[in-house]
Amino acid sequence: MSRKKVVVALGHRALGTTLPEQYEATKRTAKILANLVEAGADIVISHSNAPQVGMIHTAMNEFGARREDYTQAPMSVCSAMSQGYIGYDLQNAIRAELLKRGIYRPVCTIITQVMVDPYDDAFSEPVKVIGRLLTREEAEKEERNGNYVTEVEGGYRRIVAAPKPQGIIEIDSIRALSDLGHVVIACGGGGIPVLAQGVQLKGASAIIEKDYASGRLAELLNADELMILTSVEHVSIGYNTASETPLSEITVEEAKKYMEEDQFEPNTMLPKVEAGVSFLEKGTGRRVVITSIDRALDGYLGKTGTIIR
Amino acid sequence: MSRKKVVVALGHRALGTTLPEQYEATKRTAKILANLVEAGADIVISHSNAPQVGMIHTAMNEFGARREDYTQAPMSVCSAMSQGYIGYDLQNAIRAELLKRGIYRPVCTIITQVMVDPYDDAFSEPVKVIGRLLTREEAEKEERNGNYVTEVEGGYRRIVAAPKPQGIIEIDSIRALSDLGHVVIACGGGGIPVLAQGVQLKGASAIIEKDYASGRLAELLNADELMILTSVEHVSIGYNTASETPLSEITVEEAKKYMEEDQFEPNTMLPKVEAGVSFLEKGTGRRVVITSIDRALDGYLGKTGTIIR
Repeated sequence: MSRKKVVVALGHRALGTTLPEQYEATKRTAKILANLVEAGADIVISHSNAPQVGMIHTAMNEFGARREDYTQAPMSVCSAMSQGYIGYDLQNAIRAELLKRGIYRPVCTIITQVMVDPYDDAFSEPVKVIGRLLTREEAEKEERNGNYVTEVEGGYRRIVAAPKPQGIIEIDSIRALSDLGHVVIACGGGGIPVLAQGVQLKGASAIIEKDYASGRLAELLNADELMILTSVEHVSIGYNTASETPLSEITVEEAKKYMEEDQFEPNTMLPKVEAGVSFLEKGTGRRVVITSIDRALDGYLGKTGTIIR
Repeated sequence: MSRKKVVVALGHRALGTTLPEQYEATKRTAKILANLVEAGADIVISHSNAPQVGMIHTAMNEFGARREDYTQAPMSVCSAMSQGYIGYDLQNAIRAELLKRGIYRPVCTIITQVMVDPYDDAFSEPVKVIGRLLTREEAEKEERNGNYVTEVEGGYRRIVAAPKPQGIIEIDSIRALSDLGHVVIACGGGGIPVLAQGVQLKGASAIIEKDYASGRLAELLNADELMILTSVEHVSIGYNTASETPLSEITVEEAKKYMEEDQFEPNTMLPKVEAGVSFLEKGTGRRVVITSIDRALDGYLGKTGTIIR
């Protein structure tokens, strides 16, 4: 059986929230990923990082706020830290699970920067909520420091822009290792967002939606497949209504039609379908599978999930 | 001119302490590393992380201590975070500097785990001081939690074991990229120390001396050269005495004789010479250069520094 190159995007469910949760969750996730490897997939793994980067951001900045000899850690730095932290647990769990099955494949994490466009409309309208609940005083201080905040139940929270991913800076290294059959973890948390200033890259105060980054990663690797593993088995139209209909296989055209009809929830399913469509439109013979992490193998084997072709 | 594979070990001077310091320091360091690339070196970079991991450890655990919903972050997790953080700044700075000179080489950071031996004598005698100054109460609490502390001026500080590096878990990925001419940053902070428990790896509460890890990295990559860049231009015997003599070129036998005579400062120069000797003894045609970071190129060209053959 010929092997397929598959980018697997992992969501919150695959990683959990706290340190002990992540440690256990990555072990479960590793089993699922090892199933895919056994079934013939050369996997490149991307993942979300919201609770982890939130935890780090709070820790680094709460700490910084009380010490004169320390500077606040910008979002880009916290994102890099979260890639190291999540990658460490994940690469460890995958390595162990593969070895347990008698499969020797090097597994590693590449710290990944993703280029964003300074003229992306997203910068004028920050939408991604990050960090802990702030008091009014703290929120005002954040605003004075040039950050954005939004009012939520019980207080305020910081919000940052979510621009679209353009290039992936470390793509050559990711591709080289993947082509050798190594299991690569990359674009963690959607990648560290950077802006180009000549040959320099500068960290952007932003978060890249991991589904878009994963789609871009699959596209640039010319992968055969993009698997987005989430909490539901199928993409549905009429979600949460009496006429909810799970989709099993749809075309790009159908997906676009449903998007036009606003059938997908903006912050959860829409980015997944949109990333899938974009990946499919930029190549041929490709496939997108969106399913729950627990059904990943069946999704890969075409037995469940929503397939977009 | 044929290219040489060179492992370059960077110390504190190459990275600075605080966030803004590191950002500036890595830019200066990148120029020095780019000089080596231009002179024909295929470089793999390792680095120390003491102030960075100390900052992260304090932040994560000060934070954790005040929140019931968060767990303390063990040293291994903080180490992984520091690899992400330092790697991000370093890969960025190197990439920009190479591009400025018209050199296109992919640059990336690999999150690296380094195996240590649970029976290493170091575990029974922790020596590496980490984290901030603690009060007596805090120190007692640390001890109750199974951590070690030592009394220092003005209070207490945590100490952890410094076992010797055995295998490097991600060595195949590091080697593959380096063989393709990519610039690879690996074994940051000496690597994340892990203990094998069957096929599982478990983070150890320890710190691996980056010089030993760098030597092991050079050995496993079968590098031509190990360059240890520090704050002094030469290794000296009779250091800080009237008879101080800088060494320009010595043999392994001479280095061993000086070590037996306790000529080198235990926490700074001794690990460098010891790592160098170990690397040289495990292969042929190899060279070790120890010099100051500012004189790196001249050291590489054999014009200064201490060379061990």
